[in-house]
Amino acid sequence: MYISIKKLLKEGKLAQEVTLKGWVRTFRSNRFIALNDGSCLENVQVVVDFEHTDEALLRRITTGAAVEVEGTVVESQGKGQAIEVQAAKLKVLGDSNPEEYPIQPKKHSLEFLRENAHLRVRTNAFGAIMRVRSTLAYAIHKYFQENGFFYVNTPIITGSDAEGAGEMFRVTALDAKNPPLTETGEVDFKKDFFGRETNLTVSGQLEGETFAMALGKIYTFGPTFRAENSNTSRHLAEFWMIEPEVAFLDLAGNMDLAEDFIKYVLKYTLETCRADIEFLNQRFLDEEKTKPQNERSTMNLIEKIEFVIHNNFKRVSYTEAIDILKNCNHNKKKKFQYLIDEWGADLQSEHERYLVEKHFQCPVILFDYPAKIKAFYMRLNEDGKTVRAMDILFPGIGEIVGGSQREERYDVLLQKVHDLGIKEEDLWWYLDLRRFGTAVHSGFGLGFERLVLFTTGMTNIRDVIPYPRTPQNAEF
Amino acid sequence: MYISIKKLLKEGKLAQEVTLKGWVRTFRSNRFIALNDGSCLENVQVVVDFEHTDEALLRRITTGAAVEVEGTVVESQGKGQAIEVQAAKLKVLGDSNPEEYPIQPKKHSLEFLRENAHLRVRTNAFGAIMRVRSTLAYAIHKYFQENGFFYVNTPIITGSDAEGAGEMFRVTALDAKNPPLTETGEVDFKKDFFGRETNLTVSGQLEGETFAMALGKIYTFGPTFRAENSNTSRHLAEFWMIEPEVAFLDLAGNMDLAEDFIKYVLKYTLETCRADIEFLNQRFLDEEKTKPQNERSTMNLIEKIEFVIHNNFKRVSYTEAIDILKNCNHNKKKKFQYLIDEWGADLQSEHERYLVEKHFQCPVILFDYPAKIKAFYMRLNEDGKTVRAMDILFPGIGEIVGGSQREERYDVLLQKVHDLGIKEEDLWWYLDLRRFGTAVHSGFGLGFERLVLFTTGMTNIRDVIPYPRTPQNAEF
Repeated sequence: MYISIKKLLKEGKLAQEVTLKGWVRTFRSNRFIALNDGSCLENVQVVVDFEHTDEALLRRITTGAAVEVEGTVVESQGKGQAIEVQAAKLKVLGDSNPEEYPIQPKKHSLEFLRENAHLRVRTNAFGAIMRVRSTLAYAIHKYFQENGFFYVNTPIITGSDAEGAGEMFRVTALDAKNPPLTETGEVDFKKDFFGRETNLTVSGQLEGETFAMALGKIYTFGPTFRAENSNTSRHLAEFWMIEPEVAFLDLAGNMDLAEDFIKYVLKYTLETCRADIEFLNQRFLDEEKTKPQNERSTMNLIEKIEFVIHNNFKRVSYTEAIDILKNCNHNKKKKFQYLIDEWGADLQSEHERYLVEKHFQCPVILFDYPAKIKAFYMRLNEDGKTVRAMDILFPGIGEIVGGSQREERYDVLLQKVHDLGIKEEDLWWYLDLRRFGTAVHSGFGLGFERLVLFTTGMTNIRDVIPYPRTPQNAEF
Repeated sequence: MYISIKKLLKEGKLAQEVTLKGWVRTFRSNRFIALNDGSCLENVQVVVDFEHTDEALLRRITTGAAVEVEGTVVESQGKGQAIEVQAAKLKVLGDSNPEEYPIQPKKHSLEFLRENAHLRVRTNAFGAIMRVRSTLAYAIHKYFQENGFFYVNTPIITGSDAEGAGEMFRVTALDAKNPPLTETGEVDFKKDFFGRETNLTVSGQLEGETFAMALGKIYTFGPTFRAENSNTSRHLAEFWMIEPEVAFLDLAGNMDLAEDFIKYVLKYTLETCRADIEFLNQRFLDEEKTKPQNERSTMNLIEKIEFVIHNNFKRVSYTEAIDILKNCNHNKKKKFQYLIDEWGADLQSEHERYLVEKHFQCPVILFDYPAKIKAFYMRLNEDGKTVRAMDILFPGIGEIVGGSQREERYDVLLQKVHDLGIKEEDLWWYLDLRRFGTAVHSGFGLGFERLVLFTTGMTNIRDVIPYPRTPQNAEF
């Protein structure tokens, strides 16, 4: 019976005849194959009867080779495993020349593995990361579907550039060298595929709102794009985002939703991917050991995840946060690159990290930001100067969620649109939501890769997405 | 207690005090509000005590208005519902001017609704379609996750244009009018964001294969793009695709997988969205009535779905199919636009429909196609002229799945790559899979919108995606 290693380790019975197919991780003493098929982190040990096996065949059992094994499940003589498989038949399906195969059983640098992104998922660490990523994605769908949300695919190619979340990529089918021109010598986008200039979406929120105002509770989960030339360990040009949007929900409810959602997703994933996360936990601890004592984390990876699951997120208004930052020693001693001296300042990553990692030492929800530093669609508070925005900040990650209650009042929104010089005809449909059956509504965006970073303990966002897209890099 | 209408209709108890928030569908006799909140197809009837309600307020209860109702659950006096809500308090949250609101309680043309795609989801039909779409998507994740597949996000922006599935959109951050040029006067893509020419993906398959050859069983579910100027009811420039890929799986296993998968997804959705699909079934029957008797479907929508769930897909080789087509009366009487006269002909949509709708009258899996009409990565059969391809054809839809066993032999694949003039350096990573631990593997792609078309009984693909992208159209 052909069986996955995951199933074999869970349900395999002694004396059972099984067929395994997978890749050789290591082969030692001409006798013991550590076989992995990707179904789980664990290898199964296959014992080869080397005295009765052709030597030429034995030589082909190398790291990375694909093999098929028929054999019997027996009690393991070795340490670290309960069972192993005594091979009766062994076939090499696909060789792997050890002189050429890049993924050898040793520690490779993350940079080397990025250059071999098509093979890095064959390592323990990247196998674990990608299984965790898959499970997080499923937990997200599960949470929303079980709570009455509908999944909406908002458009990727958009003719609207009003969201203003950042620089956009142009999508075009025009000739790059000789685009058609108008009479005045401008590029004639009317002749482009869509009859207008189009870009890759930076957010599905605005379209998501249209669906929330009909179906009540919706979420998106799709790719979003930023053409920003920032080569950091936290930014990608192409990343996946989850954006729930809920009619009749206010800012407080929005915070409750975000917190409940994150806790559910982490709990489900920790339970489902325990072995993978334990492996990543060990990796995290090994990395920590290379740091100076005072820079090491007080919690290991699993403790961090459990801390988030079991503790309330601290809710702090922007005004309170500014007070804390203005008066903290760090600010007084001018240790921030951007000193905080007055209300209205935009918080930089260093400030967010100070609040989360030094001051509160737990996830923090900042809310009620100055209107000036937030997007036009956020609900203006009665004070006339703050908006019902919220950001969730995570230790080691910074901003993981950004959300708000949306401006539901037609006149106020229209005024903002005018003030910003956004063309009304670009947003007629968004404004329509406020003309016909408007209501309080809220939502947020969660950057999926930042969630994967947090859950895997990795530190570079390029290592938690299969094929990262960054400036100067679109290989594969 | 604030409660969704779905929950109220399922669990509401007589005499219970509830708060409802939703949108007015109709208001008749100054007394009966049909209230919908999008949580389900059904409205709940809210009874207004009009004698004790301010007339100005009553006038604001119009189709599309958002209202909040506090009231008591009572037994309904009217037909068609078990319970209704006797309003004690009523508040209009957002008005909807009946002179201006486009979505009135009457039949609108599909074309009119497409122009109002931001509001069409407030109709019964589009609410039902989008709930069915969401449920289908969830069923897809559920099937794969429960069967040991890992979800993989393959890249959307790709530097590889080797897949050859169709015309691509260019993604660029270069100035459209004055792009930088090389010394020889060509556009200098080295100066573009990614340092090379990049496009929107037409398929995640090739990258998906790299993950299958490490994790064993994977699937993608993401947007794909075709810059083809085809303005038909079956094509979109932006659509969602599901692409599973499985190591150690041959073509027969691939067919089994696709069939099992489709049956599961349809069964889950039919059970979960029964009321929505019953509504769409009625809509389908109404549409059928407008057709001449001989063009009407022999089955209604629910019967069609159940037929697929409960019957085996007919597996037919390309060679058999050509025999059937060559000798059928339709061909002999020259009723096909493209007559079939010899083996090797590419099947057109008319031929596929003949096979499925006239000859077999059930879903059909065609396999073992001529190599010449299929993609380079498909496994060449021992006959040297056919490849292990399969297409699944559905009544009324045509091709819904296209898949194959992949060419796992390095030499054979390399030869094909050379023959087609594909640059080896564009596919080095794909070829690597055949150099290191290669094995038989297979996968397929399913166009998500075609599945939604089938399940909803709609006939234009623009009506089963929130914001369709087609030539000359990227509104919203």
